[in-house]
Amino acid sequence: MTSAGQFKILAEDGHARAGRLTTAHGDIETPIFMPVGTRATVKAMTPEELKDLGAQIILGNTYHLHLRPGEDVIAELGGLHQFMNWHGPILTDSGGFQVFSLSDLNTVTEEGVEFRSHLDGGKYFLSPEKSMQIQMALGSDIIMAFDECLPHPSPREKIIESMAMTERWLKRSKAAMTRSPSLLFGIVQGGLDLDLRMKSLEGVTAVDLPGYALGGFSVGEPIHMMHELVKIVGPKMPRHKPRYLMGVGTPLDLILCVDAGIDMFDCVMPTRVARNGNLFTWQGRVSIKRTEFKADKAPLDPECSCYTCRHYSRAYLRHLYLSGEILSARLNTIHNLHFYLDLMARVRTAILEGAWDKFRDFCLTQFIKS
Amino acid sequence: MTSAGQFKILAEDGHARAGRLTTAHGDIETPIFMPVGTRATVKAMTPEELKDLGAQIILGNTYHLHLRPGEDVIAELGGLHQFMNWHGPILTDSGGFQVFSLSDLNTVTEEGVEFRSHLDGGKYFLSPEKSMQIQMALGSDIIMAFDECLPHPSPREKIIESMAMTERWLKRSKAAMTRSPSLLFGIVQGGLDLDLRMKSLEGVTAVDLPGYALGGFSVGEPIHMMHELVKIVGPKMPRHKPRYLMGVGTPLDLILCVDAGIDMFDCVMPTRVARNGNLFTWQGRVSIKRTEFKADKAPLDPECSCYTCRHYSRAYLRHLYLSGEILSARLNTIHNLHFYLDLMARVRTAILEGAWDKFRDFCLTQFIKS
Repeated sequence: MTSAGQFKILAEDGHARAGRLTTAHGDIETPIFMPVGTRATVKAMTPEELKDLGAQIILGNTYHLHLRPGEDVIAELGGLHQFMNWHGPILTDSGGFQVFSLSDLNTVTEEGVEFRSHLDGGKYFLSPEKSMQIQMALGSDIIMAFDECLPHPSPREKIIESMAMTERWLKRSKAAMTRSPSLLFGIVQGGLDLDLRMKSLEGVTAVDLPGYALGGFSVGEPIHMMHELVKIVGPKMPRHKPRYLMGVGTPLDLILCVDAGIDMFDCVMPTRVARNGNLFTWQGRVSIKRTEFKADKAPLDPECSCYTCRHYSRAYLRHLYLSGEILSARLNTIHNLHFYLDLMARVRTAILEGAWDKFRDFCLTQFIKS
Repeated sequence: MTSAGQFKILAEDGHARAGRLTTAHGDIETPIFMPVGTRATVKAMTPEELKDLGAQIILGNTYHLHLRPGEDVIAELGGLHQFMNWHGPILTDSGGFQVFSLSDLNTVTEEGVEFRSHLDGGKYFLSPEKSMQIQMALGSDIIMAFDECLPHPSPREKIIESMAMTERWLKRSKAAMTRSPSLLFGIVQGGLDLDLRMKSLEGVTAVDLPGYALGGFSVGEPIHMMHELVKIVGPKMPRHKPRYLMGVGTPLDLILCVDAGIDMFDCVMPTRVARNGNLFTWQGRVSIKRTEFKADKAPLDPECSCYTCRHYSRAYLRHLYLSGEILSARLNTIHNLHFYLDLMARVRTAILEGAWDKFRDFCLTQFIKS
């Protein structure tokens, strides 16, 4: 009998690991990609479809759900799982990233962040305590500590101050997170400065927690710098705890970061670009609106086993996209999520079978081309 | 062994009838509601979901599909059934209604209608022959004759002229419709003038066809006048042929017109209003955005067995709608189509069981309230 928070490493191959993390709503098999359900729905999908695609855990967003419908409403409805009819594990972010990227006029003090809603301009306040209270009210399985997320580039002095505050906020987050089956993860910051990242890692991991994340990416930094940084920092994160790289990335990013020992990923990319008609295949990313697809009978990816590729032609997908049909968003999202989830399932199998190097190199050959 | 076009009346109760129409892609059980799949998709739905809801036949639109992606593309892809992955019967309209309601600058001559596309302003021409050619290329099971559809009100003299031309166009449609398993239906016009409707009925039914429709409604006429007219004209339509009332309507319209002997209906209403957050229940039409639903745990309709009502609360549906989520359109469409299809299934059972009067009166009591 395993209890929430237990993380078992089943295989290691180089720095890459295959593991199993137990949460109050079931186990998740790592390395794992977590689809993003910002506003209590993974856009265009039902929970049953997500499950059929092999999704094991999804994300919810504290910032969005706090503004609408409000965590009080969701708690009254029985929590986020019940509200959205997803009965597997849920990870919620702390709201930090969105406060700094979406809201207007945020004012940061030691106490927390005052900001105006991007929806209606209303004044709100988030702090470590408030973020914990919201995430606990949502009934989240994995709760993220409240951190400050700086833009890139930021002055070194600013990063140092911010890291220090993020560490103080982490201690306050831990003190406020009193919900017993939920797991609190700390977030390492430090921008693209390797020295500062290592200091932040040291500070954050000094607080004993069931998991740790690398935050502060996807804020406009050069992507190869992130790769190099994760390559060094990833393997130095606590070995027996799950390692989560927040908000990253492309299939190539996933492969490179699994190789650096990362266990968990989330990103809006597969769902967002799907709605814009961009589809992932093993032959590269494809824009479905290409004129050459006008009367193309073939499935988008003849090798793919997803519902979309089994039932529809490129011509039909192009027609739906050009017509602005809702079914376009649905079929494209199904395909892209299948691509990501299937990729990660294969990643995991390769690690378990001791064939990670071979699979990694195969992926790199596929993903690094013009 | 039945062949396409055979229409078997299984029970009659007053003017109401329960029947079975055979098409090249299977039988349909009448009275029936046909969801509208304008641009080769019933908005927000997959074919499998439609089937699960009990849909037996869907509509496609000649005007829209001719403009985009073009019937040549669809034919190359194996026809509309194959293109959109719907393998049950399909009825296509003739394009007449859309040419007159959607396009700009249409010029009507005896030969046909020249119009400009509402998409790009391009010049197009539709005639009985062209409409048949398009519908045959789509591989439609039930093909509608090309008619002129006047706005309401129109001068009596204009209606008389138009009816006469529609009858000449019907003969041209019949001569041009050479695809053997497809069924051609004629369309009775005549506006809201009972005398003219009866004359049009006489003229149109003089052409021997497998089915007949009442057209020219949903063009701004007072709805009670349509009811009165169908009450008189419906029972006078050929008894042994399916009778189709085009583009109508509300649940009340369906009940009143089944009572007048109508067998087939289509309408964008359940799908369109669903996307606007309006939902049909046996307690009346409900706007899901009502403030009182903010934290309402109950399903939209506790009596309803649809996927939406079995899995989601009013609070969640309201949240999705206010957030503009795609899942809102999906869940609302599922509910409304279930309502319509379930209503018609119950209508049919009542007729088969000789209990039509009782069920009709029950429906009227439910649907006629403030």
